[in-house]
Amino acid sequence: MIVGQVVGNVVSTRKYEELQGYKLLVIQVGETRLVAADELGAGVGETVLVTKGQAVKAALRKPAPIDALVVGIVDGEFSP
Amino acid sequence: MIVGQVVGNVVSTRKYEELQGYKLLVIQVGETRLVAADELGAGVGETVLVTKGQAVKAALRKPAPIDALVVGIVDGEFSP
Amino acid sequence: MIVGQVVGNVVSTRKYEELQGYKLLVIQVGETRLVAADELGAGVGETVLVTKGQAVKAALRKPAPIDALVVGIVDGEFSP
Amino acid sequence: MIVGQVVGNVVSTRKYEELQGYKLLVIQVGETRLVAADELGAGVGETVLVTKGQAVKAALRKPAPIDALVVGIVDGEFSP
Amino acid sequence: MIVGQVVGNVVSTRKYEELQGYKLLVIQVGETRLVAADELGAGVGETVLVTKGQAVKAALRKPAPIDALVVGIVDGEFSP
Repeated sequence: MIVGQVVGNVVSTRKYEELQGYKLLVIQVGETRLVAADELGAGVGETVLVTKGQAVKAALRKPAPIDALVVGIVDGEFSP
Repeated sequence: MIVGQVVGNVVSTRKYEELQGYKLLVIQVGETRLVAADELGAGVGETVLVTKGQAVKAALRKPAPIDALVVGIVDGEFSP
Repeated sequence: MIVGQVVGNVVSTRKYEELQGYKLLVIQVGETRLVAADELGAGVGETVLVTKGQAVKAALRKPAPIDALVVGIVDGEFSP
Repeated sequence: MIVGQVVGNVVSTRKYEELQGYKLLVIQVGETRLVAADELGAGVGETVLVTKGQAVKAALRKPAPIDALVVGIVDGEFSP
Repeated sequence: MIVGQVVGNVVSTRKYEELQGYKLLVIQVGETRLVAADELGAGVGETVLVTKGQAVKAALRKPAPIDALVVGIVDGEFSP
């Protein structure tokens, strides 16, 4: 998984029906950006945990062409 | 998913039969380019949302060797 | 697989239920960091072997949106 | 998918039996090189369309450890 | 697939049971290193062909969390 920060969201009217109901968040991860679907209600400025690829499927209610999903809101990173 | 811009299309006569019927768009994503199949009718200059990898399968009518698919036409990106 | 070093862990209260019970470790791999689920009890400072992508599934007790898993604690790397 | 140019081929005598019958082409994609299996008869110097990852499976006659496949010979790229 | 050179091996005592019986080779690919499971008996200094991701599964006797596998020993690369 990767940790990134929510910086905005993508609006798309013409899209596959299977994407309806997901918020499409723009996530900043270091120098790059990706778009992840979200059902947890993550807001701009929040730090999130994103799962990519085939593993996303395990969290979807029904098949959808989603390759990145917000799987957690990050409270913090700790190192002793 | 990633957001990119349609900059052209690839023409291929000798190809796997399963690719027939898809438009093969060249997508510019930052400094790199990739080719994504398209069924939504995205045109050159439009900004699109592209899904990669295994997740593409959920949007295909029948199995095809397609690892990137245009899943939405982007109206805009918003950040509060 | 990749070899990396455990540098911390991620705490997330609002997350998918399927992630409960896994420790979410921050792994340093060269210049980049990723988060891998752990069940082996790897600690900060330890060198670990991480599997990514679809292959993770083979080691999970039940489906979960996990795309990186600590699959071994590394004793050492040897070259003759 | 990605577009690359065939620059050579890999010869391997000791290999998994499932790879028999495929030509293993070296493909130049920008600064990097990868090896893709080929059944279309692509030759050195030709520009090809390569599919990577799980999607390759849809074009294989039987399961094989192939993560990149030449899926088309490119006639040209066009942009209006 | 990618072509790399075997530069060593990883020793791990605490690991998933499914990894038993595989040699874990360190493979140098350009500037980066990865760890690939090996059953072909590739030795240090040899050039090998490595398959990554979901495609590895097709060559495994039983499910294992292995995302990279040595699928061939390379005799040579040829370009006319």
